[in-house]
Amino acid sequence: MASEHAPRIPEVTAHLIEAGGKRLRPMLTLAAARLMGYDGPHHVHLAATVEFIHTATLLHDDVVDESAKRRGRPTANLLWDNKSSVLVGDYLFARSFQLMTEADSMPIMRILSNAAATIAEGEVLQLTAAQNLATGEDVYLQVVRGKTAALFAAATEVGGVLAGADDDAVAALHAYGDAMGIAFQIADDLLDFWGGDGIGKDKGDDFRDRKLTLPLIKAIALADDEERAFWQRTIEAGRQEAGDLERAIDLMTRHGALEATRADAFAWVDTSKTALEGLPEHPIRDMLSDISDYVVARLN
Amino acid sequence: MASEHAPRIPEVTAHLIEAGGKRLRPMLTLAAARLMGYDGPHHVHLAATVEFIHTATLLHDDVVDESAKRRGRPTANLLWDNKSSVLVGDYLFARSFQLMTEADSMPIMRILSNAAATIAEGEVLQLTAAQNLATGEDVYLQVVRGKTAALFAAATEVGGVLAGADDDAVAALHAYGDAMGIAFQIADDLLDFWGGDGIGKDKGDDFRDRKLTLPLIKAIALADDEERAFWQRTIEAGRQEAGDLERAIDLMTRHGALEATRADAFAWVDTSKTALEGLPEHPIRDMLSDISDYVVARLN
Repeated sequence: MASEHAPRIPEVTAHLIEAGGKRLRPMLTLAAARLMGYDGPHHVHLAATVEFIHTATLLHDDVVDESAKRRGRPTANLLWDNKSSVLVGDYLFARSFQLMTEADSMPIMRILSNAAATIAEGEVLQLTAAQNLATGEDVYLQVVRGKTAALFAAATEVGGVLAGADDDAVAALHAYGDAMGIAFQIADDLLDFWGGDGIGKDKGDDFRDRKLTLPLIKAIALADDEERAFWQRTIEAGRQEAGDLERAIDLMTRHGALEATRADAFAWVDTSKTALEGLPEHPIRDMLSDISDYVVARLN
Repeated sequence: MASEHAPRIPEVTAHLIEAGGKRLRPMLTLAAARLMGYDGPHHVHLAATVEFIHTATLLHDDVVDESAKRRGRPTANLLWDNKSSVLVGDYLFARSFQLMTEADSMPIMRILSNAAATIAEGEVLQLTAAQNLATGEDVYLQVVRGKTAALFAAATEVGGVLAGADDDAVAALHAYGDAMGIAFQIADDLLDFWGGDGIGKDKGDDFRDRKLTLPLIKAIALADDEERAFWQRTIEAGRQEAGDLERAIDLMTRHGALEATRADAFAWVDTSKTALEGLPEHPIRDMLSDISDYVVARLN
């Protein structure tokens, strides 16, 4: 995070990184490397790489979403400005690539640069799919795979590659991260409507941002004409009034969309645990299984 | 530039890339590789990498500067929105790292990721140094080395590394790109006040953005009390009125700041040509020398 020449950089990054967060992604890299028998020092560089990529995307996301709150604190774009968030995000992104060269492995460079491109592609897809009521579950899944699951999958995969794991184990690690990342994002999107503590943002943020997340998509698919007009006004046209969030939640509840979304999250958790069966028995494997349960525990 | 899933990506990148530009940076990579005897295919990947990094920074710069014009066309942030510019810039940046893995060389990955971090650091430094009248020529040079020269230097350096050039030749290529990049940026900053055709932006843009470029820094260093009050109002406080740009140009002219800046640009051209003496005699070496002349030819 340091910079000799530009003190604004550690100010902005420290604000975000010291706010905490779960550090799930770097933990995945450390866990995967150790599970597969790695005993060198470079899993730490890769774990930091992964968290830096994540932090860079958070800085840019908050500019794109015009967010005011992140991890329960004011966002950097609010405390400093959009310019600082864009440029410090770029710096962290570049630093992440510097860090990953420490592992001295071209396959690892490829996995992480592919992941970075997939993340950005998912973010752009989300931008153009937003506010379009025709967005289906397939596009939602593509967005989620991009903006969230790609980094979870890469985080676990590079741990295995660093350890010299065989192709099957690497594929299992990737599949675990992919499915667990999807479960994580579905849970996050659902919690936006459920509210509750510890998500660090305000209830209904996605609705106000007119983001077509899974529960909305499921409710819209079952909407009658009058409900459709409601979604068109609030999501497509963006003319939201007091009481609209409550009505949206009511409609999603009535159509079983919240329950169905919850079930999807748990199904992806099952998929992630199935992927773990391709890995050696080990306390760390059990821990990875616990992490899968953890990301949806907030839905119970 | 392509993206299977997010059509917004090729739209935005095509707008910028099809607008032309000099393509100086990729040409440097191609030239350096060929000059040092490379005859494989990967100089093309690296040239595209370098232009992608450059294009990504242009997209983000235009958001940060709230620019309306680039290469004589409306900027992407104006035609689409800031969100698209931020995210498509991220995509190009990630793609550039994917592309550079094609050369399958860890030293090249290191040079380009170091350059990317230096660029972002220079941009942040510029952001915090802007509007601060205490900014001296040393900070200006640091900003220019970061935001501009780092990529010129990396562009030439990786060409040499790809060709397997020895350390002295690689150092000479780096020194050439560094000095030529500095000359390029000084000329660009000067042309902002001289106006003239072919720079693709409006005369005085930097002054209106309150950017402390070299001619301003030189004039401010020689300002009397009344002039200092003028600079404080227009640059620090940002309260600009009709006629201020003309007065700024008049002050810079009277203090010889424009002439001195021009002389600095030509001195950096000389430095770049001296660096070329460490490289083999070759028509491409002569062409690199011509490029140095070219970047300041607009000042004659």
